[in-house]
Amino acid sequence: MKLVMYQFGERDYRLGAVTNEERVVDLNYAYETHLTRKGVQRAKELAQALVPPDSVEFLSGGGRSWEAARAALDEVQDFSLEDLSSSGKRLIFQRSEVKLGAPVQNPMRIVCLSHNYHDFIRETGLPIPPEPRIFAKYKNALCGPDDPIIYPRMTQCLGYEAELAFVIGKKGRNVPVEKAFDYVAGYMIFNDVSASDLTALDKQVVRGKTFDNFAPCGPYLVSRDEIPDPGNLDVKLWVNGRLLQDSNTRELIYDVPTLVSFLSRIFTLQPGDIVATGTPGGLAKDRKPPTYMQVGDICTIEITGLGRLSNKIVAEEDISF
Amino acid sequence: MKLVMYQFGERDYRLGAVTNEERVVDLNYAYETHLTRKGVQRAKELAQALVPPDSVEFLSGGGRSWEAARAALDEVQDFSLEDLSSSGKRLIFQRSEVKLGAPVQNPMRIVCLSHNYHDFIRETGLPIPPEPRIFAKYKNALCGPDDPIIYPRMTQCLGYEAELAFVIGKKGRNVPVEKAFDYVAGYMIFNDVSASDLTALDKQVVRGKTFDNFAPCGPYLVSRDEIPDPGNLDVKLWVNGRLLQDSNTRELIYDVPTLVSFLSRIFTLQPGDIVATGTPGGLAKDRKPPTYMQVGDICTIEITGLGRLSNKIVAEEDISF
Repeated sequence: MKLVMYQFGERDYRLGAVTNEERVVDLNYAYETHLTRKGVQRAKELAQALVPPDSVEFLSGGGRSWEAARAALDEVQDFSLEDLSSSGKRLIFQRSEVKLGAPVQNPMRIVCLSHNYHDFIRETGLPIPPEPRIFAKYKNALCGPDDPIIYPRMTQCLGYEAELAFVIGKKGRNVPVEKAFDYVAGYMIFNDVSASDLTALDKQVVRGKTFDNFAPCGPYLVSRDEIPDPGNLDVKLWVNGRLLQDSNTRELIYDVPTLVSFLSRIFTLQPGDIVATGTPGGLAKDRKPPTYMQVGDICTIEITGLGRLSNKIVAEEDISF
Repeated sequence: MKLVMYQFGERDYRLGAVTNEERVVDLNYAYETHLTRKGVQRAKELAQALVPPDSVEFLSGGGRSWEAARAALDEVQDFSLEDLSSSGKRLIFQRSEVKLGAPVQNPMRIVCLSHNYHDFIRETGLPIPPEPRIFAKYKNALCGPDDPIIYPRMTQCLGYEAELAFVIGKKGRNVPVEKAFDYVAGYMIFNDVSASDLTALDKQVVRGKTFDNFAPCGPYLVSRDEIPDPGNLDVKLWVNGRLLQDSNTRELIYDVPTLVSFLSRIFTLQPGDIVATGTPGGLAKDRKPPTYMQVGDICTIEITGLGRLSNKIVAEEDISF
């Protein structure tokens, strides 16, 4: 299943699923409709509990919530765009009718990995970190496929970083590597946008990594069952159509299960935690001449099975906060 | 006012205020009682809206919520421990009857400063950062005065760092320095506990800074009006009674208003954001021999006007997650 958080008209962001026909289905309303058609009492309250309209709350529901979401999708997949939910709400949209935000909007943590691709290490000559090396972004950095990347006044060096991110689906502490996949809800594209002059100046990279909209992700969160091997996915990034990163997750130094297990020894993993696994070679700051992004550019990432994430660069001056 | 988050019996953490007599008053129940005594209708709902039982939600209410909390405290200050709220709830406790957690439990951000004390710079010979240097902790690190500091299995070098923290009280973007204090709700003690072997190994310090309970804070959040000059507060730290840090916030390189303004140019400040302003000299790793903390030690911090925060070190093996 491909989960999104969509906006339509005056609705707040709500959980949806993207179908093969590129339609967006509101999962909460769909499940309420499914229950009502079966004659179940308190359908609205049950839908709210099992398929809540926020993706992090949905993930917290675990297997029962996923099952309910699948039943909901089955129920309405043949509906037309005009068919309403049992409570009279629009529940199916064309992609072009809605705005998509970050598929995960309110995580407890965004964990990012540094220096985690063999091709990056070969290109830069940096040492392989003896253990996974993490840093943080704050959640103000999150945005989705229909949002711009904002070029902050503070920087002159705006870089891109194409990354595979995984999202935690289950609480976990001290998880053994061989059970790690049980804790992964799914995968999505993540652009670890970086102000390279500030990360160099500060040494601690947080400031240069956490400006508003410095973590575009999506377009959707793809459930784990659709990605049987996250260790063999092509990762490509273009700016204005020019291919600047071209690698494969085979190049990961610390792979998904290793990272799940490692992180679970630092803190208790929580549903909704986002882990961006690091970026391959081809960074703007490492090219000669550098290939920093400029206002007006379009940055596009594709990862096998996860779709395409494309964001335009706009100036901070043109944003009202 | 001195705000706390307290637990009593089976109650979840709830917002309280500590009185001069060291009693803890439940502010939500007190305000409900105040309104009921005035004959106001829907007292419970109004109290929930204006003096909600979570401190971050309370801070989001701004001036109206502070006024309501003051009226609530005035109403019940002469009550005895036996007097109940208008809805029949215990609303005043002796300090020893309750457990205090972190005064702010669900912030959007925890921002910490590196290398921000002149005495630290003199002692270590490190350069002054040309701009404030930030790093992040995740909120699993937060704990309060009645919690232990947990000694993680991953480290051999457990350090203390006494810090003044301020907490944001109002949304703000691009705040000028001269208006910065309007955005500060109050101040509290913060111990930036650090695994120094891991911060050195990782270079990015997040892992070594964000284990569970690596950010003890409190005992209370002291409202801004009680601390007229946060730039002249004594900061002292003891381990087992031995004085190891002894400085004053006069030594801060980037002071509170400078930090408020700086951070508001990176992201929009949110009520509840915690900013730990950095630590003075005397760190465990910089002493010869080093003075790392051991299981069983007691680490105590005092800052002028902010009380005393004391936490015991316990082994991770003795904690159940």
